[in-house]
Amino acid sequence: MSIIVQKYGGTSVGRPERILNVARRVLDAQAQGHQVVAVVSAMAGETNRLIDLAAEVTGEGRQPTEREMDVLLATGEQTAIALVAMAINAMGGKAVSLTGAQAGIETDGVHTRARIANITPGEVHRYLKDGHIAILAGFQGRTREGRITTLGRGGSDLTAIAMAAAIDADLCQIFTDVDGIYTCDPRVIPEARKLDEISYDELLEMASSGTKVMQSRSVEFAKKFGVRFEVRSSLNDHPGTLVREENMSMESVVIRGVSLERDQAEVTISGVADHPGNAGKIFGAVAEAGILVDMIVQNVSKTGLADVSFTLNKADLARAETTLKPVLAEVGDQVLLEAEDGIAKLSVVGIGMRSHAGVAAEMFATLADAGVNIRMITTSEIKITVTVSEDQIETAAQTVHDAFGLGGEITETGG
Amino acid sequence: MSIIVQKYGGTSVGRPERILNVARRVLDAQAQGHQVVAVVSAMAGETNRLIDLAAEVTGEGRQPTEREMDVLLATGEQTAIALVAMAINAMGGKAVSLTGAQAGIETDGVHTRARIANITPGEVHRYLKDGHIAILAGFQGRTREGRITTLGRGGSDLTAIAMAAAIDADLCQIFTDVDGIYTCDPRVIPEARKLDEISYDELLEMASSGTKVMQSRSVEFAKKFGVRFEVRSSLNDHPGTLVREENMSMESVVIRGVSLERDQAEVTISGVADHPGNAGKIFGAVAEAGILVDMIVQNVSKTGLADVSFTLNKADLARAETTLKPVLAEVGDQVLLEAEDGIAKLSVVGIGMRSHAGVAAEMFATLADAGVNIRMITTSEIKITVTVSEDQIETAAQTVHDAFGLGGEITETGG
Repeated sequence: MSIIVQKYGGTSVGRPERILNVARRVLDAQAQGHQVVAVVSAMAGETNRLIDLAAEVTGEGRQPTEREMDVLLATGEQTAIALVAMAINAMGGKAVSLTGAQAGIETDGVHTRARIANITPGEVHRYLKDGHIAILAGFQGRTREGRITTLGRGGSDLTAIAMAAAIDADLCQIFTDVDGIYTCDPRVIPEARKLDEISYDELLEMASSGTKVMQSRSVEFAKKFGVRFEVRSSLNDHPGTLVREENMSMESVVIRGVSLERDQAEVTISGVADHPGNAGKIFGAVAEAGILVDMIVQNVSKTGLADVSFTLNKADLARAETTLKPVLAEVGDQVLLEAEDGIAKLSVVGIGMRSHAGVAAEMFATLADAGVNIRMITTSEIKITVTVSEDQIETAAQTVHDAFGLGGEITETGG
Repeated sequence: MSIIVQKYGGTSVGRPERILNVARRVLDAQAQGHQVVAVVSAMAGETNRLIDLAAEVTGEGRQPTEREMDVLLATGEQTAIALVAMAINAMGGKAVSLTGAQAGIETDGVHTRARIANITPGEVHRYLKDGHIAILAGFQGRTREGRITTLGRGGSDLTAIAMAAAIDADLCQIFTDVDGIYTCDPRVIPEARKLDEISYDELLEMASSGTKVMQSRSVEFAKKFGVRFEVRSSLNDHPGTLVREENMSMESVVIRGVSLERDQAEVTISGVADHPGNAGKIFGAVAEAGILVDMIVQNVSKTGLADVSFTLNKADLARAETTLKPVLAEVGDQVLLEAEDGIAKLSVVGIGMRSHAGVAAEMFATLADAGVNIRMITTSEIKITVTVSEDQIETAAQTVHDAFGLGGEITETGG
């Protein structure tokens, strides 16, 4: 008998009638002959309600104790698992709920963003063996000493994937409000195609460049432990996208997908003296101000002066300029800072790139033919990213999506 | 350093500003040099909200699984303890929350009405020793196997008293919305006086006869383990009533208090053949119908026929009559059932009765002088209960309250 782990997010259990829907899905999976573990998030809105209560009792400007925040937030999933288990039982099934602690999810002691240290799934196995469906609280665990912890953003996905690894599940299904992972955002490219499968690395690169389906830490965990998982919709029965280790047939596809991210800004600091430590001064100041920097590009000219460019979210641009002003004089005599917003980022991702030459050249030529001016360029082993003017991002995405044949059946571009 | 256990009910933590009030009280107690454990109930209204959610997912006419009901309801106290601990920390104190399971409260496996089997308070002691205030979830525990359980009605009082016993606390304070235990209900007798102290047995007898301050099981537990507790208000700083083992000075007071209960009905079955088993038939039928019977009185006449009377809540009267009709023929040839509502019950309670003769006689004479007709009478070692017509209950209570000198300073009536 195969074991299946399903994960349902907060929207999927956000109202009583949706909980009934989840209960039916879980029962269906069991009826198909699987042993089923369902990982459940807090009902949509519940976490915010609890955060508001915490703010009211701690007062303005004060942070609630993180240990207690975890105790508070953990009630959200505990409520949801009890309700899902009740619903299944009321439909004639046999379900039990398990909190993170009861399911043997042990974490380190870093409250509100704990890391899973160990899973002892004896209790889950025992219930499955007895014919029960195990309804597991996502997002939470306990320390070795018994303190309640939460895993931070994307924690329920992590619970599902880690539990799937611990109980050697045959499949892990991440139910969400999209049908799967697409070659591009369908709101931008209407003919974007849902992918049947994608490798961990490709999904990681797409996630880091704007395709927000899952937090990277869950995908990294799945990769590390070889957990195959399917991203699919809880609103219909369409097959989703299988995320798995890469294989030979995947490499024949050059580009798996196109990601884009709007609302970016560029900063270029030119005339930086080519001395050790200058880049550190610039990015140290930015990091200290809590500003996240994305792409970084540096060119050194023959004159010993470098141009350093980076992108950031445009909301942080003004603060970045203020932060950098006093630093400029420290990194060269004639340093110039230019800042521009209205920028967007376009990435193409695919493990096939490794064995196919000329992908970057093809991408640049295609964009040039479409009249799109490329600003910054960075590349990794399986990703090429460029920045373009934000008003050209849709044209750019469409052009690249077409050129690499992502719209219809995937074209196997020779190397 | 003395250890104090405080218990705050759902009304005391019902809104964020009330939680702040509880936090201040707890900090005050610590500032006075005590090690403090605060047992907290779910915020008022929260339990009902959760029960409604459970009803929505299980559907009409179905009962939610009791195991899951406990998982669900336990979130109510967990939310409250986190908020109280946060509030104390925000005020500069050092508090940690502990669920029933974390506090070492082990129960049997009877979900929704579990009994405390054992308490291992190591975690509580450890935090107290470190200078922390321990905020404990009332009403809940865990089985030896780690399942979450709840203790049923009055469970938070029980948690407080049992924990006070387990950690050998110097005092347990039950904060509620009344100032303490009164000689009579002040809404009936305006000059009713708050008692400084009362024995466990007296409180138990008053509770069983209409004075609803605490569930009997908590008082019984306190008596068994010798836990002194104070019932006092969370809305002011008035000293409350100390509930404790009886002592010599308590015996000098004949009557501690007067309890009354309205909305009663009487049933008298006359002509019951004086055979073994007839009383069993009558009360067996009533019990099977789920009807609670209170006072029972039986007189046997010389003719071998008995009159059996009992009281019950008037809401159950019609159902009791229907239930008993088919039984009547089984218990005698000329059995007659008379039923009457509009009845109230009046009790006087005091351990002094044991050593003072003539208390019953004095009570009956006093009522007769006031023109109150006594219907049924039952007595126990420290309680005398009569039923009267409901429209005479206030006169009856006032008369007895005056006669035994409960209004002003307590009169020490000679034996």
